[in-house]
Order: sequence, then structure tokens, then C-alpha cells
Amino acid sequence: MPHIASLCANSHRLYTMADHKWTGSVKSLKGVILDMCGVLYDSGEGGGVPISGSVEAVKRLKESDLQLRFCTNETQATREKFVAKLQRMGFELSVSEVFSPAPAAVSILKERGLKPHLLVHDDLVPEFDSVDKMNPNCVVIGDAADKFSYKNLNDAFQVLIGMEKPVLFSLGRGPSDERHPTVTADGYVDNLAAAVDIILRHRSQ
Amino acid sequence: MPHIASLCANSHRLYTMADHKWTGSVKSLKGVILDMCGVLYDSGEGGGVPISGSVEAVKRLKESDLQLRFCTNETQATREKFVAKLQRMGFELSVSEVFSPAPAAVSILKERGLKPHLLVHDDLVPEFDSVDKMNPNCVVIGDAADKFSYKNLNDAFQVLIGMEKPVLFSLGRGPSDERHPTVTADGYVDNLAAAVDIILRHRSQ
Repeated sequence: MPHIASLCANSHRLYTMADHKWTGSVKSLKGVILDMCGVLYDSGEGGGVPISGSVEAVKRLKESDLQLRFCTNETQATREKFVAKLQRMGFELSVSEVFSPAPAAVSILKERGLKPHLLVHDDLVPEFDSVDKMNPNCVVIGDAADKFSYKNLNDAFQVLIGMEKPVLFSLGRGPSDERHPTVTADGYVDNLAAAVDIILRHRSQ
Repeated sequence: MPHIASLCANSHRLYTMADHKWTGSVKSLKGVILDMCGVLYDSGEGGGVPISGSVEAVKRLKESDLQLRFCTNETQATREKFVAKLQRMGFELSVSEVFSPAPAAVSILKERGLKPHLLVHDDLVPEFDSVDKMNPNCVVIGDAADKFSYKNLNDAFQVLIGMEKPVLFSLGRGPSDERHPTVTADGYVDNLAAAVDIILRHRSQ
């Protein structure tokens, strides 16, 4: 029986669960981890809108005995900015309750003594303030959007092929779909990795 | 026995062949097709330098009874500009003797009544002057270099996913290697094609 529920469906289901008063089969639950985009809010112009019922659902979960945490694959803003946006939508949450890719990457970088060359969105850069970025020995790529220029991609490429064993961290994956009709970070990660791979194969020949 | 020799090795071999006076085994040859970059000249700063012996080799081939044509995968300049560069290096050649991807693409577009959205190098655009580009129903991608911006890639993506059956022409392939250490057009073609493919699979579900 799981003791933590991870909800990444949509807030209708979340709302129904919150309405349950946590009886019966969910009695043994100790905590809930909520996905955010598409669960709490829908992205869109001006940052998006809360999904009907979701603000109330989060409120009820907070009032319950359950531990509540939020999880997101957001890599275009710091948690501070992201949380402020959700607070403006009416959600009760704080930065320390939110788990996102950049702080996870920062932990790994520090653990392994790695210094990153960043190919990330400008608004994400402050998440890496505490990390030494001089003489980089790895590349961290996120959903850089406009920063995915030919020059920036090649700068990251040069850093990677300058290493004996290139190390590339991707902050996430998320393909294009009808609701996100852009060439996503995925493709750029694959593009960069493939180019580096070709160079490595050339070298080993 | 082949009647046309296609040379894409290097000009040392070419020079040696030219020196042969076309006796013996090459007697039945009617023509020669020469690759250009890496055969006639080496690319580099300022447009590159002729490979030793290659100007003389072309001169001898021209003086022979053999038909001579040039073939290139150059997609960053019109044939006019490209030929002018080689003429400045000392080569005897004219635009009509050069076969390159853009004019080949133009033939196909006209044959099939296709109107392209271009994601190509600025200097290549004049090759497509004779083609109707209003209301595009296909995308043509070349080695666009700096033009491979996030916006331009997404513009091409929007054109493609707006079609019932997306048509994408790539003017060529050529991976990164130690002498061409950039994320090449290859990766961008694959990136775009993969993103479109994902959308199509979503639609058909």
C-alpha cells in the first residue's frame, strides 16, 4: 500500500480526492505530491489560469493531516518566480514545498564537483547562483526557448567536445504536442547529444 | 566500364589522373564530375584556399576531350557567388558547369507545383527567386547557420504542422566532424522532422 500519492492527472480527480475526507482505501496515505502545470493550472497567455476547483483542493489538502509537496518540470523560471505566479492565482504554497529540476541539478553538480556551462532560459539562471561556473566541465541544458540560438548551441557544443568524456545534463524532457506547438527542448538536447556523439565516434576511429 | 568518372577523393589523386594523359584504362571515359570542397579547395577563413595542384588539374581536364562538370553540396551561397570565389582562386569554371542542391530543389518544386517556406542561408535565397513562395505547401531547409534561430525553426514547424501531409526537403546532409565543429544542418533537419512526427502521431491517436 503506498504511503504517498503522486497526482499528475488533472484537478477534477484531485478535487474529488480532496472531497473524500481521506477515508477507506486512502487511510494509510501519509502525503501527497502534486504535479502543477495541467493539474493546478493550465498554461497560456499571461502565465495561465487555475483549473476549476484546484485552489480549493490544495486548501483542503493543506488543512488535512497529509504532507503536501509540489513537483514540476518547469525550467523557464526560478521557483521563486513560479511560486509567486501560483500565489497570484490564489494557491497556498511556498518555495520550500516545490521540487523542480534546477535545484535537483544543482545538488548533483555540487555532489560531483561539476562546474556547468548553462544553456538555459535567462529567468532560470539565478537557480545556479551558488554554483561555480568558471572553467566548466559539463553542460546543463533546459527549456531555453529563444536562447536556443545557433551560437548558443555551438558554444555548448564546443564546451562538450573540449572534454575527454563530455557530460551533458538535460533538465527535462517534454515533446511537442498540439497544446505546445513548438520545437521543444527535447529536440535541442538530442541535436546537441547527436553532434557530440558523431565527434566522439570520429575520434575513436 | 564507366564512361563518367566521379572524383570526390582529393586533388592529389585528381592531379595524378590529369597527368596520365588519359591513356590505357581511362581511354573509354567521356566525362569527369568533380566534387569541389576538399577536392579543389579546402574551406577555411576567408573562403578557403586551393589545394595544391588542383587549379592545374582542372586546366588540363578542360584542355582534354573529356566533358567536365562540378558537383557540390554547398548550400550557403548561390552558384554565382560560389563560382566567383573559385574563379578568384584561379579555377576555370562557369556557373552552368556547376551542379548544386538548390537548383535541383527548384526543379523538383516546379515539377510538383510546390511553394516552399525557406529555412536557408540568406545568401542562398536568390536561387529560389523564380519560385512562387506565397502560401507555402512545403518547407525547404538548408545549412542556414545563424538563421537556425528558435523563432525560424518554430516558424518552419508551424508551416509543417499546418499541412495535412507535411513535406520537408533537406538540401543536404553533412555531419559535424573535427574540421567542421558546429552543430550542423543535419541536426536541425532531424530536430524539425522529429517534432513534426510527434505531432502527427498525436493526431492519429
